[in-house]
Amino acid sequence: MGSIFVSELIGTALLVLLGCGVVANVALTGSKGHGGGWLLVNFGWGLAVFAGVYTAARSGAHLNPAVTLGLWIAGQDFAPGVSPGFAHAAVYAGGQLTGAMAGAILVFLAYKKHFDAETDPGAVLGVFATGPAIRTPAWNVLTEAVATFVLVYVVLVLGGTPSGLGPLAVALLVVGIGASLGGPTGYALNPARDLGPRIIHAALRLGRKGGSDWAYAWIPVIGPFLGGLVAGLLYHISPMPL
Amino acid sequence: MGSIFVSELIGTALLVLLGCGVVANVALTGSKGHGGGWLLVNFGWGLAVFAGVYTAARSGAHLNPAVTLGLWIAGQDFAPGVSPGFAHAAVYAGGQLTGAMAGAILVFLAYKKHFDAETDPGAVLGVFATGPAIRTPAWNVLTEAVATFVLVYVVLVLGGTPSGLGPLAVALLVVGIGASLGGPTGYALNPARDLGPRIIHAALRLGRKGGSDWAYAWIPVIGPFLGGLVAGLLYHISPMPL
Amino acid sequence: MGSIFVSELIGTALLVLLGCGVVANVALTGSKGHGGGWLLVNFGWGLAVFAGVYTAARSGAHLNPAVTLGLWIAGQDFAPGVSPGFAHAAVYAGGQLTGAMAGAILVFLAYKKHFDAETDPGAVLGVFATGPAIRTPAWNVLTEAVATFVLVYVVLVLGGTPSGLGPLAVALLVVGIGASLGGPTGYALNPARDLGPRIIHAALRLGRKGGSDWAYAWIPVIGPFLGGLVAGLLYHISPMPL
Amino acid sequence: MGSIFVSELIGTALLVLLGCGVVANVALTGSKGHGGGWLLVNFGWGLAVFAGVYTAARSGAHLNPAVTLGLWIAGQDFAPGVSPGFAHAAVYAGGQLTGAMAGAILVFLAYKKHFDAETDPGAVLGVFATGPAIRTPAWNVLTEAVATFVLVYVVLVLGGTPSGLGPLAVALLVVGIGASLGGPTGYALNPARDLGPRIIHAALRLGRKGGSDWAYAWIPVIGPFLGGLVAGLLYHISPMPL
Repeated sequence: MGSIFVSELIGTALLVLLGCGVVANVALTGSKGHGGGWLLVNFGWGLAVFAGVYTAARSGAHLNPAVTLGLWIAGQDFAPGVSPGFAHAAVYAGGQLTGAMAGAILVFLAYKKHFDAETDPGAVLGVFATGPAIRTPAWNVLTEAVATFVLVYVVLVLGGTPSGLGPLAVALLVVGIGASLGGPTGYALNPARDLGPRIIHAALRLGRKGGSDWAYAWIPVIGPFLGGLVAGLLYHISPMPL
Repeated sequence: MGSIFVSELIGTALLVLLGCGVVANVALTGSKGHGGGWLLVNFGWGLAVFAGVYTAARSGAHLNPAVTLGLWIAGQDFAPGVSPGFAHAAVYAGGQLTGAMAGAILVFLAYKKHFDAETDPGAVLGVFATGPAIRTPAWNVLTEAVATFVLVYVVLVLGGTPSGLGPLAVALLVVGIGASLGGPTGYALNPARDLGPRIIHAALRLGRKGGSDWAYAWIPVIGPFLGGLVAGLLYHISPMPL
Repeated sequence: MGSIFVSELIGTALLVLLGCGVVANVALTGSKGHGGGWLLVNFGWGLAVFAGVYTAARSGAHLNPAVTLGLWIAGQDFAPGVSPGFAHAAVYAGGQLTGAMAGAILVFLAYKKHFDAETDPGAVLGVFATGPAIRTPAWNVLTEAVATFVLVYVVLVLGGTPSGLGPLAVALLVVGIGASLGGPTGYALNPARDLGPRIIHAALRLGRKGGSDWAYAWIPVIGPFLGGLVAGLLYHISPMPL
Repeated sequence: MGSIFVSELIGTALLVLLGCGVVANVALTGSKGHGGGWLLVNFGWGLAVFAGVYTAARSGAHLNPAVTLGLWIAGQDFAPGVSPGFAHAAVYAGGQLTGAMAGAILVFLAYKKHFDAETDPGAVLGVFATGPAIRTPAWNVLTEAVATFVLVYVVLVLGGTPSGLGPLAVALLVVGIGASLGGPTGYALNPARDLGPRIIHAALRLGRKGGSDWAYAWIPVIGPFLGGLVAGLLYHISPMPL
């Protein structure tokens, strides 16, 4: 299980490095991609998944506790030879959260001078953690749950579908979910992706830093878990597409 | 045929959730993708097809009554073991329309607070149903017919072409048709995609809601059917590309 | 050879319908993609190639006299069982030019009311034919030759490379060439793509129509042929990549 | 090894022609893609890699001395039958630098009249060589090192992963790295890509030309080599993903 932990750690670190990286590029003052638009953000996150999944093939490339939960509920192996269950899920989640924190530190280093130059604390926080366009906890949870349901359900279907696309399929799926369902909450879709970098935001000394908005932090954890849960159940009771 | 119905229902629900979702993201006030541009809309719809097709593999993933009609006219099986014919076509169309309505409800839920905050009834209707840039019924029908002809004809050709791309081929085709032929009518291309969400628009209580523009509703039904019909005929009489 | 002619005709018609279509969407007043940007145009043309190539598999999907010339110079078969030579090349070119004219008529029909409403004759001509950003014939020829060299040389290499991408490879290549080398001349890359629609522009009654700029018309013919010629020669003398 | 040299030369020439070409399109006054945005630049560079890799299959398509270094450190063959080592690495680097210079000359020719018309020396230099958003050598080196680490590490993983995507995988990876990590330095990622065109910039007579910013020139050489070195080491000590 040590290699599973490292595999999820490396993959999630790359995911968060490239994913939070594109937000830094678009949001931080003076960056060359500043104001580059929503589709740029969508491709950045989608291709972050693409890079991360390739490097985490050993562990089945969950990179996301909500995916791990969905596989568990659906009764699928986590990876070849790794059965679902609590102990294994904890190893996955540990690697994912640690990797997400490592990735956030790398984003901080790659954009260090732009963080120093940034005067808007909201832009700084936005690089690390998601936030809602309209703050209404119940509806924000629902949006994250619906979006993550799509992600996990299609990932479960993909797991049973032969494809020459490999990691490109899930990468494009994430481009699409971001384009279509990312508007209200900024699409965390992944508890580790939001919580890990938020912890780093709280810990690091950053130029004009505001609070880490801990009041919102539970939403991009609970929402994605809820979506992954429903996806696993629906896949379990009606495994038709296979 | 029950599993065919459910397969088309789930696939079309995902198609409409992600497809109408990207319009909500671009059109509704305050959404993070607001004003994100036409290419964002094109990728959103294309990747909506991508997700929907994967999940509806069991039924051949028509997700569109015009595709079902085209296959029927061309004399192709609807899916392995499902011969073309009226009864089967009705099951497909039923699943598609029901799924499109389900997807529209999910979009409503995911963007609930943005619908509440929206003050332009045209933006609200635009999330659900297509409308013309210049209202001239005959020409609007023609544009929808030409665009849907391209969709169904190439889908018929793809059905006979081995490919490692799988659902990506039709997804990219839809990105391209939207980019190139979506300008005059907003490219319904699919009677269920337009009619289902329009019914939901009429039924739901939405913030500043205007009428559902029923005067236009027949155009994105007739136009796509016409295009699918011509595509099926052309494919039938000249199956060269195979 | 009749089926070769029809295959090239259908494929090139789809190419020009979707390719000139995206320009209509971006350039014509009131179209929903108006002002959609260069990347939208690039994807529109690339996916136009994608659709066209699928439907013209029977003839090897040249869709472009410069590609036919490049294959001929390189000594490659035009399609399985179709040897290179003047008579066969004439059939290809005839199908391509006829198809390009047919595609242009379909664009006219799909965007009819937007042509009627357009007040800028330059926008109308731009839908059909390419024009230079800075008019200097020798340099415009060179730009078209360099860009078409890249297209034909890589297409020749692709022809000898096994790939799961199929038509997607050449589609993405065209996206890239347009993004990178389309700036000075609007990238015809293809004598039929420019000449065919220009003839239609001259023949059709269009709202505010200006001249068809016949003084420029030889450049997007000679430039691409020159590029295809050099690509064929270079591939012939140094077939290393195989 | 002569064919290796020529293969790297042709591939890198195409890479730089299309890569620097998209910058010319976006940056130079009057070009049709002027102001086309960061995502256009990202796709231009990614698809430049796509074209270059196809044409350099014979040599394993490094096209980048940092990739050659990473393979060497990781103990991988440079290409089938080409063992790692100093003499072979020198042949690769020579082909890459020569190709990069050739590609830069082709960009100059394709955009000749736009260089003549350009009045901003910074835009002219930006076509050929990268420059920092905020000039701080140590942090600029770090950003280039992190970004190139991602490139070389994932390329090493890809080398051991069967895939139907072929060159598309590395092309999309470069789109993603540019989107996410290109903001602070304009992402050279490749010593030859920056140094070769910078030499051409210094040598050519260009309209309003300023200096070639030699004070910065070492950063996009050292940074990428550093990233390639770390990627090779990490892959060597923990080849888990295979």
